[in-house]
Amino acid sequence: MKPFFNRVAMIGVGLIGGSLARGLKKHGLCNTITGYARSVQELEKAVELGVIDDYASSVKDTVKNADLIILAIPMSAFESVFNEMSASIGSETLITDVGSAKASVIEAAKKAFGKLPSGLVPGHPIAGTEKSGVEASFDGLFENRRVILTPTENSSENAVEQVRQMWQQVGAEVVLMTADHHDQVLAATSHLPHVLAFSLVETLGKMHESSEIFRYAAGGFRDFTRIASSDPTMWRDICLHNKSAILSVLKKYERHLKTLELAIEAQDEQAINDIFVRAKAARDENVVD
Amino acid sequence: MKPFFNRVAMIGVGLIGGSLARGLKKHGLCNTITGYARSVQELEKAVELGVIDDYASSVKDTVKNADLIILAIPMSAFESVFNEMSASIGSETLITDVGSAKASVIEAAKKAFGKLPSGLVPGHPIAGTEKSGVEASFDGLFENRRVILTPTENSSENAVEQVRQMWQQVGAEVVLMTADHHDQVLAATSHLPHVLAFSLVETLGKMHESSEIFRYAAGGFRDFTRIASSDPTMWRDICLHNKSAILSVLKKYERHLKTLELAIEAQDEQAINDIFVRAKAARDENVVD
Repeated sequence: MKPFFNRVAMIGVGLIGGSLARGLKKHGLCNTITGYARSVQELEKAVELGVIDDYASSVKDTVKNADLIILAIPMSAFESVFNEMSASIGSETLITDVGSAKASVIEAAKKAFGKLPSGLVPGHPIAGTEKSGVEASFDGLFENRRVILTPTENSSENAVEQVRQMWQQVGAEVVLMTADHHDQVLAATSHLPHVLAFSLVETLGKMHESSEIFRYAAGGFRDFTRIASSDPTMWRDICLHNKSAILSVLKKYERHLKTLELAIEAQDEQAINDIFVRAKAARDENVVD
Repeated sequence: MKPFFNRVAMIGVGLIGGSLARGLKKHGLCNTITGYARSVQELEKAVELGVIDDYASSVKDTVKNADLIILAIPMSAFESVFNEMSASIGSETLITDVGSAKASVIEAAKKAFGKLPSGLVPGHPIAGTEKSGVEASFDGLFENRRVILTPTENSSENAVEQVRQMWQQVGAEVVLMTADHHDQVLAATSHLPHVLAFSLVETLGKMHESSEIFRYAAGGFRDFTRIASSDPTMWRDICLHNKSAILSVLKKYERHLKTLELAIEAQDEQAINDIFVRAKAARDENVVD
């Protein structure tokens, strides 16, 4: 069943918000999209590109009469945006988001709304590039990508169903799980790799011969550190908003790295070999390039 | 000036040895190439593919009458191969290699030859893929890639010049540096990233929900861990043969990672931000995708 929304409020029109807006339009899922962003310039660009139809000058005005509100904003902005909209949303209004950490979104909603609205269905599309901004958005970004929805104990069945169908219509495969489970899985598969890549570039950048060192960085290093080109502010916010899950997997990682370090130190051929063989097998079995 | 070799002995005909043999032939740099490998099957495949012309059943026979000997073998094999060839090489014979660590090659040569031969010019092409074996070889592998030569105190000017020109003819850009410097630079740009990627896959593979976790591993993770699909034996050998340089940069990395961990723990927004901004700037300035 194809859902249809009369007025969509898109709070944040960067890469993800812009791409979702384009997808909604392309697949005929809405009548109008009103955008909101901190920068009027960004909003005008989004109108110019046909990503949104118009924009408002406050969150409050943007969400007025909207039947679907989508928050595509940095993790640090949720609390204030929820606060600004709390007086203006109807009891039936659907609210979803694309934030990279989910427990913290639910916590912010609780603070702002008092009680979690039945229309709130937090979500997270596992999609994106190192680029950011509305110019980088495109309607196919979510095709064949997974979207994780983390309904709260108050989310209505109908709300979950509508958000699920919206994502399916723009080409995504939708999976449901708890917010805590989402945060653990994403800490391991996305947040930790970003932390490691930023740290690697930081380490090399601080070495004496850093400009020479970067000159000899070949294929593997390039691939490995591409994610360190991602938006620093966004990743800082993710670290702050998924802190405990990230720290937990980071500490596991540090222990494994120390084990490997000690094996190299001890020239323990067998131990090094076992780790590398296991890792190669795990990757080859589980990850398709 | 285009060098020309009558008989080339290619010890090891995997991805790198095979690709160099193909390049030598394509650019008309030699008359015949005799191969050697531990597996006769690999050698027959290499003959079939036209990568080598024939093969011998011992290192000794392979290098007999060769004017250029190329060692494209795992780091762990250098000492025994140098030993096997030491009685059979002429005083003018050129010897080079493609090993990923250079001080250890020079040390192995010293042990086997007593005195470093004037024809020995250790080298390392910064090229390769995650694939291995002669079937993966292709003549363009070194085009526009850097090759680092690390002449010893005994390398003759003529020997260095010939090896340099050989690499230039197959499309590479040749750079000279000391073996120790090479080992430090490569530890940072290649060996450390491999160690980190193997450790990341190991960490995730050992988690409870590992098969689920790998399912949500998206773009960044895929790129990041691609190098963990590399040959485990080769990388174990590199860890053992460039041990001190790898441990030195690995310890630096662990300190930077710990600093970031503590900043996340303390929710130190500014500190996290500074690291990410610096890392992104360093990568964007220095690495071209």
